[in-house]
Amino acid sequence: MLNALKALQSAIRNPQSAIRNPQSDMLDYAEPVTKLIDEFKRLPGIGHKSAQRLAFHVLKAPQEETDRLVEAIREIKEKIVFCSTCNNLTDVDPCRFCSGHSRDRSIICVVEEPYNLVAIEKTREFHGMYHVLHGALSPIRGIGPEELRIKNLLERLRPNESGESSVKEIILATNPNTEGEATANYLARLLKPLGFRITRIAMGLPVRSDLEYADEVTKHKALANRHEI
Amino acid sequence: MLNALKALQSAIRNPQSAIRNPQSDMLDYAEPVTKLIDEFKRLPGIGHKSAQRLAFHVLKAPQEETDRLVEAIREIKEKIVFCSTCNNLTDVDPCRFCSGHSRDRSIICVVEEPYNLVAIEKTREFHGMYHVLHGALSPIRGIGPEELRIKNLLERLRPNESGESSVKEIILATNPNTEGEATANYLARLLKPLGFRITRIAMGLPVRSDLEYADEVTKHKALANRHEI
Repeated sequence: MLNALKALQSAIRNPQSAIRNPQSDMLDYAEPVTKLIDEFKRLPGIGHKSAQRLAFHVLKAPQEETDRLVEAIREIKEKIVFCSTCNNLTDVDPCRFCSGHSRDRSIICVVEEPYNLVAIEKTREFHGMYHVLHGALSPIRGIGPEELRIKNLLERLRPNESGESSVKEIILATNPNTEGEATANYLARLLKPLGFRITRIAMGLPVRSDLEYADEVTKHKALANRHEI
Repeated sequence: MLNALKALQSAIRNPQSAIRNPQSDMLDYAEPVTKLIDEFKRLPGIGHKSAQRLAFHVLKAPQEETDRLVEAIREIKEKIVFCSTCNNLTDVDPCRFCSGHSRDRSIICVVEEPYNLVAIEKTREFHGMYHVLHGALSPIRGIGPEELRIKNLLERLRPNESGESSVKEIILATNPNTEGEATANYLARLLKPLGFRITRIAMGLPVRSDLEYADEVTKHKALANRHEI
């Protein structure tokens, strides 16, 4: 009875195993193959078919190639830390942005993820500092302000002995979607009373796009944010 | 002049590097991150965005999870070999199919890849032997009969001392596409003169599908392969 219950629980947790039985061992690949497929399946955006294809690629790939992959995984786990100032990924703490002397310390650009930082840096238009939240507010996924790295942003904004903060402006560059907007609104309400200039990146029609193909919300934003020329 | 040529060649090989310059080191992630993204990009079906997402997942994942992935990659490379009889992936040679005493040695089912073998095994309808070609004929991709593992199939078919082969039937279960068809035709022409019964898996409408949504070639096959009931 207890065993049957356990089997049922295990079947609920892992539906694949439910249809497997001791006699059908041959239905599967050899164990090391199944194991690697299972590990690949844990990665985001990788389903069973992709995991299978990746495992077979690894199997057939030259040893040097898989050695390089393994080494790269190990190295990233070993060497990469979060910058204690801005939370960016870095191999030196503070990161190159926070320790760079040529950057404008009076502006902080707040982004959701490290790759958003890279996206902005690629414009070569921004020369201030960054702050990475590592997420956006999402009540549905249970992500509240506590889950975001807002605490050390507030520390950065704290005034020095002469009572002034070196930061003048905070650009809210979270994504132009529901969660990013909610995050930007939250931060604006939190930071505006402290006397900083709070700005939000513009939303409107993408450059070189066509009015005809733009969605309603984007067109609405483009109209609402119109400016004189 | 020579340097300019070299830079151009390198830019052609790697378009990403063309827009990178020594001053723009900050445009990128820290080196271990870039390295892992590059390694992930080498895997089949993984583009730049997916590689980036995977690298960030690895970064944020618990150490045990990435250790398991690394170990699984190492293990598959170390333990998995091709069965010397049927070319299936296996951790023991000969594989469980070739050494299994309960399997019918008079039928060999020829498939392209090890996962095709698993797909057939899952029907639980086939109890014969397998042979994995590791590919299909494809003149466009430069894959001729020499590139497929046909040689050890012929060895398996060789008659014993009493002049008889234990094999009676060969099922050609290569894929129902151009390359699989070409491979099946090639093998049929090669093996039929040796006196074996050569069969091809049926092509027609998938069970529980709808005539309305079937493509022309499939409908043609379904009509051509019609049988009396």
